[in-house]
Formats: sequence, C-alpha cells, structure tokens
Amino acid sequence: MSNAPGGDGLCLDDFHVGQRFVSGTHRIDAEEIKVFARAFDPQPFHLDEETAERTLFGGLVASGWYTAAITMRLQVDQGLPIAGGIIGIGGELSWPKPTRPGDILRVVSEVKEVIPSRSRPDRGVVRVRSETRNQHDEVVQILDAKLLVPRRGAPAGSPP
Amino acid sequence: MSNAPGGDGLCLDDFHVGQRFVSGTHRIDAEEIKVFARAFDPQPFHLDEETAERTLFGGLVASGWYTAAITMRLQVDQGLPIAGGIIGIGGELSWPKPTRPGDILRVVSEVKEVIPSRSRPDRGVVRVRSETRNQHDEVVQILDAKLLVPRRGAPAGSPP
Repeated sequence: MSNAPGGDGLCLDDFHVGQRFVSGTHRIDAEEIKVFARAFDPQPFHLDEETAERTLFGGLVASGWYTAAITMRLQVDQGLPIAGGIIGIGGELSWPKPTRPGDILRVVSEVKEVIPSRSRPDRGVVRVRSETRNQHDEVVQILDAKLLVPRRGAPAGSPP
Repeated sequence: MSNAPGGDGLCLDDFHVGQRFVSGTHRIDAEEIKVFARAFDPQPFHLDEETAERTLFGGLVASGWYTAAITMRLQVDQGLPIAGGIIGIGGELSWPKPTRPGDILRVVSEVKEVIPSRSRPDRGVVRVRSETRNQHDEVVQILDAKLLVPRRGAPAGSPP
C-alpha cells in the first residue's frame, strides 16, 4: 500500500479506536548499531563491545534513537499506511529495554484516539501507541504518537 | 568535558532545578536530510525538493527523527556533560516546526527535576527539557527527557 501523497493509504475516517497494525521485521546487527552511534550518539556502550561490557548494559546496545529510527522505517515500509504519509506532531517515548545485536524488531501499533480537527475540517489527529518488540516479544520501545491524518479527499501531504 | 564512564561529567548531586546548558551548533544541509530519510524515513517530503514543494510542508524538511538524532549528537558532544554518559529512559517529544536545509541547530537545556532513586542509592533521575532551536531562535523540537544519572562515586556507566 502506497503512503505517497494522493496514494491509497488510510484517511481519518478509516481509523477507529482499537484498530491494530503489525509491521514487517528488521534484524539488528552490531555494525549498524556502531555506524549510527558514530554519526549521532558516540557513547562507549554503543560503539565497542569490550568497553560496553564494563557498563551497566553489560554489552553493546543500540542508541534509543536508532531503535526509534528503525521503528520509523518499519512503519513507513508497511506498518502504518496513512494517506499522505506518516506525519508525527510529537508523543511520548520510552525504552523499557535496550536493543541488542541479533534482535529482530517489529512494531505492533494500536489506535488509541481519533480526533477530528475543530479548526481544520480537512484533517485530524490519530493517537497511535506503537510497541517495538524483539524476537522474545519483549518491548524495547513504546511510542505514543500524535499523527496528522487527512480526511478523505484531502491528503495531509497536499498543500493546505 | 568527557562523558566516558569514570570521566569527569556531572553526578546527580551536581544538578539543580533551573540549571541550564547550551550545546554547540550543527548546520543542516539538504543532502544529509535525504541520506537519513533514505535509510530511516523514506517519505517524499524528506527525499526530494520538487515533490516536497507539493506537500503541506511546501519544501524539503528533515525527518523529525533526524532532528532528534542531531539533537542527541549535539548533547553528547558538549551539550549535557553527565558522568557515565547520557542514558535516556524516555520522555515527551514534540516537533513544533520542521527542520529545513540551511537551518543551524543548537540545543538549550534546562533541568526541571532531580529525583534520587528510593530503591537504588547509587543513582537517580534528572528530568531535562531540551529545546532544539534554529538560527531564528524558533523551536523545532522539544524533548522533556528522563535521564539516568549516577550519584557521586557510582557512575551509571559502571556495572550495577
């Protein structure tokens, strides 16, 4: 399903509380953890196995922002097919457990609220709770996000 | 100031409400917005100027997760010198405005709460509100984060 503006993703009218979505999977390896960390989060527990073993993590772990970035990729690819694309306004984020090399991540999302805009009849906000889980079904990230969603006939990706 | 475990960053006892920190700066260019988007957030408004002009953003904008990643890099480099490193448990995140090519970002942080752990005398949580601002002093991201911080003599980066 395409998420491109004008594509055939879901509009506000298509969402309802309790609706669930499941993404594909992505396997995390040590090298990609380090590449991301060198660019954005160069701390010892994300960069080097030996040094990481002597930290409270007891081994190499991914930056939380890498877990967030991979979560986004899984959502864009097939996790959350919204017309006009996935446009986040913000939300609450937590990392109950670290992501480690070898983890296979997927995202399980549930619609929590559907809120038509009072001032803009062409759009609304959908609140979606997305759990990023590893292969043991442990939750490594929870994102309770507010997403901007167009009403039918007015894709959010179109000019306002 | 080093953020390495055992380095000379700040411990819980060094933080107080109202304390402020300012990071260095990073200039965003179109190419890095696209490189990040191709890897983690491949949506039209992050990938191509012409297509982006026809979306509600009216031009190329960075993925919110790219703004978050650059914010983290600025904090790790010199924005927030915590002993044992910057270890986030989670927090609230919002993007009031998009980040655009040419923006020069910096992070202004303020300590909101200092909470010693009841169960673990060697650590606590510091709640820090970090505003990522552009060259016009417009806020492009607000992150109200809970950070794990060691008490003096017990760096969070050390084994538990």
